[in-house]
Amino acid sequence: MARPTLDFWFELASTYSYLSAERIDDLAEKYGVIVTWRPFLLGPIFHAQGWDTSPFNLQPAKGQYMWRDLARISEDRGLPPFRQPDIFPMHSVKAARLALVGLAQGWGQEFVRNVYRAGFQNNQDISDNAVLMACVVAAGGDPISAGELANSDAVKQKLRGQTEMAVDRGLFGAPAFTVGDQLFWGDDRLEQAMEWAVRLA
Amino acid sequence: MARPTLDFWFELASTYSYLSAERIDDLAEKYGVIVTWRPFLLGPIFHAQGWDTSPFNLQPAKGQYMWRDLARISEDRGLPPFRQPDIFPMHSVKAARLALVGLAQGWGQEFVRNVYRAGFQNNQDISDNAVLMACVVAAGGDPISAGELANSDAVKQKLRGQTEMAVDRGLFGAPAFTVGDQLFWGDDRLEQAMEWAVRLA
Repeated sequence: MARPTLDFWFELASTYSYLSAERIDDLAEKYGVIVTWRPFLLGPIFHAQGWDTSPFNLQPAKGQYMWRDLARISEDRGLPPFRQPDIFPMHSVKAARLALVGLAQGWGQEFVRNVYRAGFQNNQDISDNAVLMACVVAAGGDPISAGELANSDAVKQKLRGQTEMAVDRGLFGAPAFTVGDQLFWGDDRLEQAMEWAVRLA
Repeated sequence: MARPTLDFWFELASTYSYLSAERIDDLAEKYGVIVTWRPFLLGPIFHAQGWDTSPFNLQPAKGQYMWRDLARISEDRGLPPFRQPDIFPMHSVKAARLALVGLAQGWGQEFVRNVYRAGFQNNQDISDNAVLMACVVAAGGDPISAGELANSDAVKQKLRGQTEMAVDRGLFGAPAFTVGDQLFWGDDRLEQAMEWAVRLA
């Protein structure tokens, strides 16, 4: 029997992706599933939908609910207090490119969690180079070479390709999880996605 | 200590409301929570947002996902096969008015489940009077008097008031659950809402 696998699709500016990044390692171990981390950008997907910002901004009632939901869930899960950032959504393209570099070099998952914590626990602007470099260093990466690589055409193209792949797989929001051709959307579906990974392996 | 209470807000045309209607009685018993069923209309709320149909139609990728999600969840929960109806969303105003009548007369919850099953298991049009009357009869209601009451100004006004109340409480989708001033959105949040009801009682 093949080892179960699952792709974890996340957007660095996404609040609910943050929740999944904080717990996916534990669940992967519990279910015995190998997880591939796949950063992508929601901006182009929202733009193709005719939206110039997050649906949480376009629908104020939904946005207001989302902040409360995140605070409650963070508390229930024993995470540090969730803090609504002053800027939302933050520009995440640089963070996503650095994540791709880090994931290839072995420090990407920790970097991703550092970025989420910077944005959603500490109200830091994750489009700011100093913030990003601190996240790289804390994850064990070399900030100089990581910054250069993140600006390379190869990495830029890789991120574009990853976002196109997300669209091809039917993604319309984040986080999402794919197991073969099965798509699961939202942190709420993480356990179900793990179960399907085990079932389909 | 007061007995825990929770309000269950549902839209008769809503697929995820169907899922909650099928399981909320069992959960209410498990948690010892008294549930008040509150039908309302999403149409006016979507309209105020500038939408002329369901977001699942406005966002095709999200809609496509939703149908798959419902099929998988129905299967996981041992429900009869979920069937994507030919018409979506169906006009639900008559069903919602009848639900108000039935809830006042004691056969409303069963009626609501009958309507959901007609729409999402049997591909019946829940705006059709014959379909609705069959749902009334199967729930133990009298179709003649229920139909007359449902057309009364009092019931029409009650449904409008209930939808306004939903907006006041911050609702933007269905199902939703309220416990005091705490709002929970989506079938996924039903257990959490029950826990909060117990905690806040």
